[in-house]
Amino acid sequence: MSNGEGDITQSLAPKFCFSDGATTIEGISFCVAETGMKYQGRTDAFLAAFTEGASVGGLFTQSACPGAPVEWCREIIGEGKARGLFVNAGNANVFNGEDGFLAAEQTARLAAHGIGCTPKEVFLASTGVIGEPLDTTFFDQALPRMSNLLGAHSLEDAARAMMTTDTHPKGSVREVHVGDAQYRVAGIAKGSGMVAPNMATTLAFLFTDAPLTATTIQQILQEEVVDSFNAISIDSDMSTSDMILMFSSTGCSEDTFKASGSEVNAMVGTMRKAVRSILRDLALQVVRDGEGARRLIEVEVMGAISKSSARRVAFSIANSPLVKTAVGGQDPNWGRVVMAVGKSGEPIRKEKLKISFGNIVVAEAGRGRASIDDSALAAYMSGEVVTIRVSLGIGDATDRVYTCDLTEEYVRANGHYRS
Amino acid sequence: MSNGEGDITQSLAPKFCFSDGATTIEGISFCVAETGMKYQGRTDAFLAAFTEGASVGGLFTQSACPGAPVEWCREIIGEGKARGLFVNAGNANVFNGEDGFLAAEQTARLAAHGIGCTPKEVFLASTGVIGEPLDTTFFDQALPRMSNLLGAHSLEDAARAMMTTDTHPKGSVREVHVGDAQYRVAGIAKGSGMVAPNMATTLAFLFTDAPLTATTIQQILQEEVVDSFNAISIDSDMSTSDMILMFSSTGCSEDTFKASGSEVNAMVGTMRKAVRSILRDLALQVVRDGEGARRLIEVEVMGAISKSSARRVAFSIANSPLVKTAVGGQDPNWGRVVMAVGKSGEPIRKEKLKISFGNIVVAEAGRGRASIDDSALAAYMSGEVVTIRVSLGIGDATDRVYTCDLTEEYVRANGHYRS
Repeated sequence: MSNGEGDITQSLAPKFCFSDGATTIEGISFCVAETGMKYQGRTDAFLAAFTEGASVGGLFTQSACPGAPVEWCREIIGEGKARGLFVNAGNANVFNGEDGFLAAEQTARLAAHGIGCTPKEVFLASTGVIGEPLDTTFFDQALPRMSNLLGAHSLEDAARAMMTTDTHPKGSVREVHVGDAQYRVAGIAKGSGMVAPNMATTLAFLFTDAPLTATTIQQILQEEVVDSFNAISIDSDMSTSDMILMFSSTGCSEDTFKASGSEVNAMVGTMRKAVRSILRDLALQVVRDGEGARRLIEVEVMGAISKSSARRVAFSIANSPLVKTAVGGQDPNWGRVVMAVGKSGEPIRKEKLKISFGNIVVAEAGRGRASIDDSALAAYMSGEVVTIRVSLGIGDATDRVYTCDLTEEYVRANGHYRS
Repeated sequence: MSNGEGDITQSLAPKFCFSDGATTIEGISFCVAETGMKYQGRTDAFLAAFTEGASVGGLFTQSACPGAPVEWCREIIGEGKARGLFVNAGNANVFNGEDGFLAAEQTARLAAHGIGCTPKEVFLASTGVIGEPLDTTFFDQALPRMSNLLGAHSLEDAARAMMTTDTHPKGSVREVHVGDAQYRVAGIAKGSGMVAPNMATTLAFLFTDAPLTATTIQQILQEEVVDSFNAISIDSDMSTSDMILMFSSTGCSEDTFKASGSEVNAMVGTMRKAVRSILRDLALQVVRDGEGARRLIEVEVMGAISKSSARRVAFSIANSPLVKTAVGGQDPNWGRVVMAVGKSGEPIRKEKLKISFGNIVVAEAGRGRASIDDSALAAYMSGEVVTIRVSLGIGDATDRVYTCDLTEEYVRANGHYRS
């Protein structure tokens, strides 16, 4: 399991070392299963149980057509309390009308029965095909078995059980020390298509034994998602099922929290840094494993009038199919970067623009550079990470977003029938 | 040359019949050349001359990084007068700094010398690679020859000379009768990548012998581009070089025009209809010939609160790589249509949504239809034109946009080095 700071220079699709025990978190147990609902010969669901109950915060897709699990979680998260989390892959339970919501409710009921809590203490997430009715009889069979086996499986097993087109499970873990206390925070995520930023993208779950209130978790997630999951796009297509949830297994009441002073403030500050690092790490893992991706593209826009303007320019570049196919073809086609900057709708003065691939300046002052070291540029473009730097030269704001190249494999993967 | 009404049921990449003489327009002569600037063994430039001078109107890309020819045309179009038009393919003369503008000026000077007019009476357009310096010495050689040969070539030759990745020249012609008078209006366009709507997309040129003022041409173009060129997208990437120009070879002064009453009004009305038909025809030809395209996708959004809201939903669908790859794979994956509707940011009530492929309803009232004739649906998806119909059920407004499928060929075509 990666414990770097989301270093973008690491290779694509890294083999994570989910080392034994390293991701055990007090008060949280996992079980995975093969429900047989869609995939055969692999796990496709996990149940997490919080022995003592957990405090929880979360962010959800901004889609106007969210899935039933998103609606279910939105309905129950106001309480800030969780006893369980059930996630399945293969069927997203989206656009199934009232039956979809009833299926979600029934799933929560089955999970709650096994854990010994109320349905509204069970959070749900589903990922997979949109618009296929969710047949909960598969869970009728699986969930009683799963609740009996809680603790038998690891966080890595859970990450693996929610994969769809992902080529590997994604996880990240940090140890946090505050005074004499030691805490652990771990996250898992899935990709790898229908990924575009808006409040929360894809599925990601974080677990910690640090005592955090639901309000604190919510605040941390809202702030830290901006430069992690909200700063990535694989294909500009926002999913109906996106969510990030974070659970604190030791919980903490709001009153205790407020009363406990500076020590708690230090802990929250340290935890916020750890969450930032994990979210960034997971977000980059998702982009690296984008459908068909061979290269990670970092787009850095500097000299903008504001961070939000820089971000719009950056996403105009990161979502351009022509820029993404060029990078896929190892082509330093900065003319397409000019095009993407030009179409952004943001304030631009073309005579101020400067464009670089990595540290190699290819255009500045409104024109291409006369002398470019073509062999150095070719060598740079052949790497697994390509940074496109654009300086707008009209302000002080900077932003960075991440995407992957657009390859024939993406088209192949998405051009075939669902079944 | 197509003279249909832009019927979307015609096959992709039709072989146009530029029949002899049919596209001759009084007062306009053409010449094409092989300048050798980039392409070898094919024509790559055309010159059009307006013997008596023409009135002209035009629309240009909204890019903040427009090409030098766009800037040149913007500078001179205020006069509303033209004596010539010079278009070259292979080098877009974009982002070449002050030298780019000087190259444009020099090109206009060379063309003007041959025609016998001032440089500011010569309109310019360039299409091709962005950011490569334009070496006008190729035009030093070619333009004198071209002006000597004016009239030697046809409108089809001109359409062919401005092709880049287009697989065939694109043209459309109409005969217009007003009282005893008979006029002709003809248009040519190029595609076929970096095509997305904003005021004007790609290059298109219209020519007529009907006496129209610059102001009238401008009004007609502004209104008629909305549902033609502004309603298409191949890859969501707006070009730096887009323009539509329309020339009336018999011109007409604003004063004469105003004084001539109801007969002129009838003529303008008839011409407007003809231009509408041509622009729509050309726009569809551009989409059909989209890079790598095998299918034309029509997206119709009904029941929206406004036309602009319907358009945003329609483009959210038309620009979704997941929808476009699904159609390419003949997959009636309406779940991705739900996703694209959901991410549009427009007012949506998912329980009111109805989605059809052609006339086959696949989802309604917030869920998939229980019984769908799968073989009829499969037959429909295998056709060359796929209409995706979405009814939002919350208002009375409708809009239609057009795109093409996203295929591996698009990625291949755009993933290889420029040279």
